[in-house]
Amino acid sequence: MDVSPFAPARFPKLPNLAGLRLGAMAAGERYRRRADLTLMELAPGSTVAGVFTRSTMPGAPVLWCRKHIGKGRARAVVINAGNANVFTGRQGLDDVAATARAVAKAVGCKPGEVMVASTGVIGETLSVDRLVKAVPGLHGKLKANGWRAAAGAICTTDTYPKGASARAEIDGQVVQIAGIAKGSGMIAPDMATMLGFVFTDAKLPSQVLDSLLRWANSRSFNCITVDGDTSTSDSVLLAATGQGPKHARITEAGDRRLASFKAALLSVMQDLAKQIVGDGEGASKFITISVSGAASAKAARGIAMTIANSPLVKTAIAGEDANWGRIIMAVGRAGEKADRDRLSITIGGVVIAEAGHPHPDYREEQVVPHMQGRMIDIAVDVGVGRGKATVWTCDLTHGYIAINADYRS
Amino acid sequence: MDVSPFAPARFPKLPNLAGLRLGAMAAGERYRRRADLTLMELAPGSTVAGVFTRSTMPGAPVLWCRKHIGKGRARAVVINAGNANVFTGRQGLDDVAATARAVAKAVGCKPGEVMVASTGVIGETLSVDRLVKAVPGLHGKLKANGWRAAAGAICTTDTYPKGASARAEIDGQVVQIAGIAKGSGMIAPDMATMLGFVFTDAKLPSQVLDSLLRWANSRSFNCITVDGDTSTSDSVLLAATGQGPKHARITEAGDRRLASFKAALLSVMQDLAKQIVGDGEGASKFITISVSGAASAKAARGIAMTIANSPLVKTAIAGEDANWGRIIMAVGRAGEKADRDRLSITIGGVVIAEAGHPHPDYREEQVVPHMQGRMIDIAVDVGVGRGKATVWTCDLTHGYIAINADYRS
Repeated sequence: MDVSPFAPARFPKLPNLAGLRLGAMAAGERYRRRADLTLMELAPGSTVAGVFTRSTMPGAPVLWCRKHIGKGRARAVVINAGNANVFTGRQGLDDVAATARAVAKAVGCKPGEVMVASTGVIGETLSVDRLVKAVPGLHGKLKANGWRAAAGAICTTDTYPKGASARAEIDGQVVQIAGIAKGSGMIAPDMATMLGFVFTDAKLPSQVLDSLLRWANSRSFNCITVDGDTSTSDSVLLAATGQGPKHARITEAGDRRLASFKAALLSVMQDLAKQIVGDGEGASKFITISVSGAASAKAARGIAMTIANSPLVKTAIAGEDANWGRIIMAVGRAGEKADRDRLSITIGGVVIAEAGHPHPDYREEQVVPHMQGRMIDIAVDVGVGRGKATVWTCDLTHGYIAINADYRS
Repeated sequence: MDVSPFAPARFPKLPNLAGLRLGAMAAGERYRRRADLTLMELAPGSTVAGVFTRSTMPGAPVLWCRKHIGKGRARAVVINAGNANVFTGRQGLDDVAATARAVAKAVGCKPGEVMVASTGVIGETLSVDRLVKAVPGLHGKLKANGWRAAAGAICTTDTYPKGASARAEIDGQVVQIAGIAKGSGMIAPDMATMLGFVFTDAKLPSQVLDSLLRWANSRSFNCITVDGDTSTSDSVLLAATGQGPKHARITEAGDRRLASFKAALLSVMQDLAKQIVGDGEGASKFITISVSGAASAKAARGIAMTIANSPLVKTAIAGEDANWGRIIMAVGRAGEKADRDRLSITIGGVVIAEAGHPHPDYREEQVVPHMQGRMIDIAVDVGVGRGKATVWTCDLTHGYIAINADYRS
């Protein structure tokens, strides 16, 4: 598989976080000759929050995490790549528990303090013995700067590892936020689902993490789409070790002293989310779609997502065609309120349609250079209210078909 | 463009219908050297019903038809191909009215008795003078056996003309039903939207036609998808000339003497709908997706449509890969109730998954011959109720990308 044109020249330098050690190794569960098992150990007292797929067919690891995340405590996160442990019945649940027990034994915690994520093929039983056997050795090799190894080992059809970090201040104290993610389609060649793991050395109660995570998630990972196909395994975890510099005690997500932290968290999560879009299967263009003037933020997001998921819009962009009629079509099928006679469309800053008409000054050659670039910006105002949303997606190319149809999984 | 592998060897023989004359000619509105203007004249007293796109950005012809269809009377239908007259503001409405007036003058009726449909590019003003000028000559050449000419002239990116017919009995009298349709994507290279025109020589009041049309439409045209992109111009008209053999007077759609007529109407409309799927852009496989065991028929349709529109399911089938994990994924994202532990999946009659597990006897080679065929059958039971639905779709191939991205529109 060719590396995405959006791959960064190198994996970013991520900071060591006090209270976090991580690493990866080849357990041979499915892949040969590459690391496929990742372990992250968190200091005692660490807190955690998570958001998970809304699929009605969630994988066994998602069920496990949902069961235990409510306590807000985590001492470890373990991830295997290659097998999603989805649609595996009772055996699948037993396998997650066995994995968590093995990690708990190595770390010295309860199994319920181990969060589990899996990504890969659906409907195949896990070779759980290989994972369990690998855990003690892997645990012995964890280190604070294991980011690159972990980011690589959680990949499936991804063409590059994804990481991001930011610093924030809480009441004058500098804390760190860093995370990794994987994903290349929402789900792809039976593999490649969306996973994200974000950490901080700040000290924050789990209910605060939970609020911050949901807030940032709705503005980052929930604003991306590659092919509209939601995975059975989507999971994003946010954990806080509390081992960074001592800062003011925070008990509410609404605390104004979290302003810098919130901005930094959003920046890390948006960065990771955009890296997933940039690694979208077959992507040749990175597309930003901003909708304004909708009845609500939710309506705006619905319209933006309908445009982003339209195969006709995506193929037009792949063909470098400013085919704005297809944008009109997508707005029309979104099912949200829109006023045709006030609708405007801007591509790359050029006003194409306004007030229900093609703009009289618009000439297609004005947007040709923009369409030939890699970053495509589409703005639509639907003229009924003040709701706004921005989503990110990629184009639909022969590469997507090649990845998903030409090669047997 | 290559002709679809599902193209019939020849256009079917459609019957002459008493009270209907039709024809087509090259008006040169957009296309050169091909017929692009179609006219259908109905006998005085003919009744009509119609269903139209739910897009919030409907074309001017859809607005015109919605305004006039309520009276249930039609003397003519006029269709131009090449320009959809969508997002054309006030001018677009004026152009529809001018077209209807020209036809009304030729036929000798009111403009409101002329139904108008357009299909083609969005956002371009119609060269309405060319249409108006062509009408009198076209009207002079209408004939009862003009089906093939009309079916060809309404096409845009279609690779074959689509027609179907059936006979029915009403209280012992034989009546005819015949129709034509076009469509190749819900909307495609800025062109190709779904249009259907069905006629009968039976005598039926417009409110009966309306009920029958909605009933049959929900089981035919509303059960197909090529790319999930709903057109701004979708229109299906059902008209009755009342010029066939005299039969019992019918005043209610629920009249039991309509049983044969309903079956025949459904057969014609399903035939046309399936021909549209068979001409889906780039289609190499015709896919039938049957969902049972859902909470309701609506839920079943929602699940079936989510499977049918999943790019990952469609590309897997294009690759002849019985990748049932992607079907699980699609069921999971449909948002309708489904019981993972009772879910079953059958492909080509082979039970692949049952009761939340891969079937123990399933071996992939059992479905390989089916996947290599042209007609793919997928059945899913979601194990929660008695709701059922069947939808038809095609696969997603390099051909779709080539049609929609490689060539500028």
